Amino acid sequence: MATDNNLPAIIIHRLPHFKLSFPWAKNICNPIESSDPLYPIHKPSARILIVVGPSPLNSDHLDQYPSLECVFGTSAGVDHIDLAECRRRNIRVTSAGSAFSEDGADYAIGLLIDVLRRVSAGDRFVRDGLWPVQGYYPLANKLGGRRVGIVGLGSIGSLVAKRLEPFGCTIAYTSRNKKSQVPYAYYPTALDLATNTDSLIVCCALSDETRHIINRGVLTALGKKGVMVNIGRGALVDEKELVKFLVEGELGGAGLDVFEKEPEVPKELFTLDNVVLSPHKAILTPESFDKVTELMIANVTAFFSNKPLLSEINLSDY
Amino acid sequence: MATDNNLPAIIIHRLPHFKLSFPWAKNICNPIESSDPLYPIHKPSARILIVVGPSPLNSDHLDQYPSLECVFGTSAGVDHIDLAECRRRNIRVTSAGSAFSEDGADYAIGLLIDVLRRVSAGDRFVRDGLWPVQGYYPLANKLGGRRVGIVGLGSIGSLVAKRLEPFGCTIAYTSRNKKSQVPYAYYPTALDLATNTDSLIVCCALSDETRHIINRGVLTALGKKGVMVNIGRGALVDEKELVKFLVEGELGGAGLDVFEKEPEVPKELFTLDNVVLSPHKAILTPESFDKVTELMIANVTAFFSNKPLLSEINLSDY
Repeated sequence: MATDNNLPAIIIHRLPHFKLSFPWAKNICNPIESSDPLYPIHKPSARILIVVGPSPLNSDHLDQYPSLECVFGTSAGVDHIDLAECRRRNIRVTSAGSAFSEDGADYAIGLLIDVLRRVSAGDRFVRDGLWPVQGYYPLANKLGGRRVGIVGLGSIGSLVAKRLEPFGCTIAYTSRNKKSQVPYAYYPTALDLATNTDSLIVCCALSDETRHIINRGVLTALGKKGVMVNIGRGALVDEKELVKFLVEGELGGAGLDVFEKEPEVPKELFTLDNVVLSPHKAILTPESFDKVTELMIANVTAFFSNKPLLSEINLSDY
Repeated sequence: MATDNNLPAIIIHRLPHFKLSFPWAKNICNPIESSDPLYPIHKPSARILIVVGPSPLNSDHLDQYPSLECVFGTSAGVDHIDLAECRRRNIRVTSAGSAFSEDGADYAIGLLIDVLRRVSAGDRFVRDGLWPVQGYYPLANKLGGRRVGIVGLGSIGSLVAKRLEPFGCTIAYTSRNKKSQVPYAYYPTALDLATNTDSLIVCCALSDETRHIINRGVLTALGKKGVMVNIGRGALVDEKELVKFLVEGELGGAGLDVFEKEPEVPKELFTLDNVVLSPHKAILTPESFDKVTELMIANVTAFFSNKPLLSEINLSDY
């Protein structure tokens, strides 16, 4: 990677298998990866680090950058960054904010329609040559009239709700607090929400409070005709229980973009037609990446001109 | 099938491989299939015939029922019924009207999201075990901001438009006539529409005028980044040209619920990840079937009490 030593060095932190690259703002900074020959020189003085995707950033990593003042995350979620440790070290943290929200919401609707109407399963049916042999594909489930519960009515959840309205769904939600000026029914817990709906869309942030927020009790409440879509984080759902419910027919179906041990996906799901499996790509479009790049440029510029950062995480919550 | 000879006989007309059955209104009529021992007795006197799905009904069939007054179709489209011949014989024809419209519109949105965001292809990627091997799935395309053209702004097309609005798409349409009180841009031909949009949703009725309405010129106008969804009828699209465009990368992608020679699907499409294939099931949900059954009951009742039929086709158009 060509570097310009007149520009401030910014450390690019990523797991080797996160191959995605953003068009870093090369006119305003000097992006340095650990493979760069100049990396050892810049390590002690670098003030900014950019975390690519969900690459974990822990205290051992932070120890290597004594001058670090700011960590820029490129994901909407920041559960892979040790926020408590950043707070202790007075390191500020930003996320991708709402740059991915539209794509995330679009994909959630796509997964919901797919699970209910069996789009992927129908595609498999045709490609396997079964249409001329078996005739009609079994009836699927209608979307209109379903009671959809949104777990986390944040930036993505709100856009999911807006998209669902013209489909004739009844929308409800759970979140840390009841939102004012929202026309949807509020339930204080995921269990209450699941008890009063038949479809859950999970799109909240992962934290100690939300880990396994979708557990055995919630899945039981959702029931045999219930479906669940998860575009948040794998660990929001107790995956072992989910697999058991799906395999035993105790849950109607699931659309899963995220998993507890990515890229590992429980193999028991591979043969189920009421499940849509997706390789954590709900937000992967060039347009979203452009938005995040713009956000990064704005944040780097703001940082070096001492202006307020965009999409900064309030670390006092952690 | 148990019969009640006190109720009026109604002929059930279907191709043998259309295995779907509706819960016929057995309390108000006596449904007779050609396999029924009483069929030869009822044939000369039957006044009503119900056509199941897209089973063709031509003049040879009609010749067998000299007392026929009314043909009830169970599909939204009636292109499989020889309407000119029905008109000549003074036989009235009804369709499923808008009973399937919501499900058709939902499915169209599902196919559009699937083609753009590669939902089915991603599912295949995971099930084939490629995620841990190849890492990230390639970037897909954003739905928001796309210029979507609807071919046929009827019952289904209007619901498609309504559903697309919150996704941030610009909506335009073509139809026989410009509709008043519709906020979308109107183009008089499919070619004009394709020239001014990047995504087509085909959901008009099939007739002599609309056969191959999506032809080489329209596909060229749609272009390499353009996508097309067809939930209407296979013959609305010149399938040979479509396959050529897709195989040669001259069209961005397609979501196809219908084909020219169903259940045959061109095998060249089976290996393409930018194509979603579906076995003519956009409207197959129990809820839609219930609606059609209700409609049939209402129509049978109306017929025998000399009241106006519901969803009657204006045969003077044919």
